[in-house]
Amino acid sequence: MNLDRCSINSITLRAARLQELIDVAVSHSVPGVALWRDVYSGAGVVSAAKQIRSAGLRVTSVCRGGMFPARSASERAAIAADNRRAVDEAHELDAECLVMVCGASTTKDLAAAREQIESGLRGLAPYAADAGVRLAIEPMHPMMIADRSAITSLTEANDVVERIGAPNLGIALDAYHVWWDVSMAAQIQRAGKKLFSVQVCDWVTPITGQLSSRGMPGEGVIDLKDFVSQADGAGYEGLIEIEVLSDRWWSESLENATRAALSGFAGI
Amino acid sequence: MNLDRCSINSITLRAARLQELIDVAVSHSVPGVALWRDVYSGAGVVSAAKQIRSAGLRVTSVCRGGMFPARSASERAAIAADNRRAVDEAHELDAECLVMVCGASTTKDLAAAREQIESGLRGLAPYAADAGVRLAIEPMHPMMIADRSAITSLTEANDVVERIGAPNLGIALDAYHVWWDVSMAAQIQRAGKKLFSVQVCDWVTPITGQLSSRGMPGEGVIDLKDFVSQADGAGYEGLIEIEVLSDRWWSESLENATRAALSGFAGI
Repeated sequence: MNLDRCSINSITLRAARLQELIDVAVSHSVPGVALWRDVYSGAGVVSAAKQIRSAGLRVTSVCRGGMFPARSASERAAIAADNRRAVDEAHELDAECLVMVCGASTTKDLAAAREQIESGLRGLAPYAADAGVRLAIEPMHPMMIADRSAITSLTEANDVVERIGAPNLGIALDAYHVWWDVSMAAQIQRAGKKLFSVQVCDWVTPITGQLSSRGMPGEGVIDLKDFVSQADGAGYEGLIEIEVLSDRWWSESLENATRAALSGFAGI
Repeated sequence: MNLDRCSINSITLRAARLQELIDVAVSHSVPGVALWRDVYSGAGVVSAAKQIRSAGLRVTSVCRGGMFPARSASERAAIAADNRRAVDEAHELDAECLVMVCGASTTKDLAAAREQIESGLRGLAPYAADAGVRLAIEPMHPMMIADRSAITSLTEANDVVERIGAPNLGIALDAYHVWWDVSMAAQIQRAGKKLFSVQVCDWVTPITGQLSSRGMPGEGVIDLKDFVSQADGAGYEGLIEIEVLSDRWWSESLENATRAALSGFAGI
């Protein structure tokens, strides 16, 4: 795939400072970046937004809001406040969406966690709409259910999106989280114009941890060409993010990781 | 749950020889064992069957047949022959089912792997029926798709069972593999009398590998009481297997692992 379709997610080059990430994008004619919030938490989001605007880059997503399930009302209030800050930041950055990592089940009551997630999304959606921010639920791989998200399939995410029915609520689709699902093609079609973000990385074994055991595009067994073509077929017209959480690649130099990410993307 | 509902899977006490496994079951009034094939491959299945019969134990399952996807016709023929041997062994042991670990996708063509699995099951079912052996497809956790099974959800397993429509083809339901699924309850009901085996262990984090990072019942976040009650509600009347693949517990003494397994089961 041509790099003019590419966005680089900051977590892929985790050691890079914001300006380094921007420089990588600009020097390779990559039109977008995606930002985890820690990347700009030091200098502040206003300054980050200026840097990115002056480089002429798009911000395809901000990661993350969510993490709704909590045991107490005061915890839930603190989470809601943080989510509103994340919306404000996505607005400031003119990001194309705020990715929602919805949160794990903190007890054996998985259904209750899912209710808290849905309730949290319902509460946040109008605030985000006022700010012109789209919220993108990221269904996450079932191996992350107990630490990242109880929304474990694209079917479930589509169900939540349809039940809530907010115009600014949609899907962040990451190949790593959904490629195993025999109903993926049908559910990508179902999501259609609700696909707010599309991300690629690859499945490599052995799994050494549920979070950061991923491969660069092309290193593993996911048919990413087919995946992107399905998203396009469903009406997605945005950039494709390279988002690779990898202990292995994080230990490499910025140069090596950049080369692997971009050549992997070009090979899709 | 009372131990009169329990079956101990040999892999839970991996270091135990067959007679030790039998002794553990008998001394705790546990009525069943489940056997991985390596447990009897040395002395032979006829001898193992005699030992188990003379102890008065049930064999709730034999693990495993399956592993259908392969690149060449000769590999597929060798796999088919091994699957027929597994059926013969399950027959000799009077096992209540042969668990089918259907096999991973060996290329990027996941659909082709799934077709090979379905074709392999169609081919094996009549042979198994002649031997009076039930085949139980085990849908496996999506994190095992690239090394154990491309059948990654209970929905998909139910679909395959219904499409093939063989009376002796059903489901092996392991809580670890399916508990994350928002449609689990509905799909357990759908499986109904096709539930040939029900297994418990627990979900503990961090995941240190896709295969053997599991916990004893009660150590993790799965609501196993609810899980078993759903299986019972769908019409399952068999024993419940403790099947725990755990590097951590495998490094403990047989006594410690036995105590943890049985007290965990009692706590469900």
